[in-house]
Amino acid sequence: MSEVRVIQIHESVFAQNDRTAESIRERLKKQGTLFLNVMSSPGSGKTTTLVALINRLKDRLRIGEMDVDIESSLDAQRVADLTGIPALQIHNGGLCHIDADMTARALLEYDTEGLDLLILENIGNLVCPAEFDTGAHRNVTILSVPEGDDKPLKYPLMYQVSDVVLINKIDTADYFDFSLEKARQRILNLNPKALIFPISARTGEGLEAVCEWILQEAERLRDSEG
Amino acid sequence: MSEVRVIQIHESVFAQNDRTAESIRERLKKQGTLFLNVMSSPGSGKTTTLVALINRLKDRLRIGEMDVDIESSLDAQRVADLTGIPALQIHNGGLCHIDADMTARALLEYDTEGLDLLILENIGNLVCPAEFDTGAHRNVTILSVPEGDDKPLKYPLMYQVSDVVLINKIDTADYFDFSLEKARQRILNLNPKALIFPISARTGEGLEAVCEWILQEAERLRDSEG
Repeated sequence: MSEVRVIQIHESVFAQNDRTAESIRERLKKQGTLFLNVMSSPGSGKTTTLVALINRLKDRLRIGEMDVDIESSLDAQRVADLTGIPALQIHNGGLCHIDADMTARALLEYDTEGLDLLILENIGNLVCPAEFDTGAHRNVTILSVPEGDDKPLKYPLMYQVSDVVLINKIDTADYFDFSLEKARQRILNLNPKALIFPISARTGEGLEAVCEWILQEAERLRDSEG
Repeated sequence: MSEVRVIQIHESVFAQNDRTAESIRERLKKQGTLFLNVMSSPGSGKTTTLVALINRLKDRLRIGEMDVDIESSLDAQRVADLTGIPALQIHNGGLCHIDADMTARALLEYDTEGLDLLILENIGNLVCPAEFDTGAHRNVTILSVPEGDDKPLKYPLMYQVSDVVLINKIDTADYFDFSLEKARQRILNLNPKALIFPISARTGEGLEAVCEWILQEAERLRDSEG
């Protein structure tokens, strides 16, 4: 009886992705560049939040931004226009995520040498981006108040893989049926170490605390390498 | 020189899906069941909207509902609790869409004979669900005001495949930087035949017009078969 060969396509895809992700993480760590991967639903305010954070941080850190969308270049243009930093738009051709290989290809086109902070604005989606390690040092997800406090129950993996959750549009909390306490408990049940920051990218509420966290992470990365 | 065999995996997946979808559409048409596929971002108010529509229609139509989520059963439970109609929860195991085969399997478990209207609440996602024909007679997408009027620019396929766009949470329009006119133009540029209904699932604004459209579609389906 001859042996049957079994190929685990699914596993090998993820295993290869994880190796590439680890190489990206190492290379960026060596050059002292903190790499943040920012994920969320469409319309939760990723770009607005990033613009607000970059403008608060750009005198203290050298920042680069890469933006993933299916076919439009609106977000990278908005970041470049509103912050003055160089932004790269990645078109992923209709996929619902970006993986480590795609990130590696983008890094060939985008010079990150000398950056203290590299931000990846992932595609608006709560499912696929959570499945692929992009090589970021930290994952951040944004949950906006109008989306509801049940999102951690419905998209658990996103919250399990995220180190930080920004609860955005907190200035609209009175208007929507959203319990910050319930959201917090549901996130912590999935991920007890998650840092949770209520913010409003529009009013600026809570953003200084997020900037402080980013500055500390950047410093920690440099120290660990130095 | 031997010939190289080329297999178009991508095309054949979609071709097979389209055939299954067509069979579903035909079978449901024959039995006089209008099948609506409802798509949107997470948190745009799909379940709330469906509950409100079903409660307005359930004395006039026999309605069934199937709900797709990764692993939770919150939405089907909410629909069943708040409307009293039978609802089926489909767990798709982490995928970001439901295709025609999955719908066909669900229809084996869920008795639709005698229903006038079958609603599929697709997974919250603006990318993948747009790519797979589920066998529905009509596609509906919900865009909620807090998500922003730029979503048609960023997720064009969703709007190209949708017959109807519900612009939800319209009662919050003053609070967000959302232009109904811009959203409408952007949708119509992608899909000149799209019907657009501004609604508020919370206040009830605009829902009667949507009910009227559903009633007319159900009647048209029965007439075409009769």
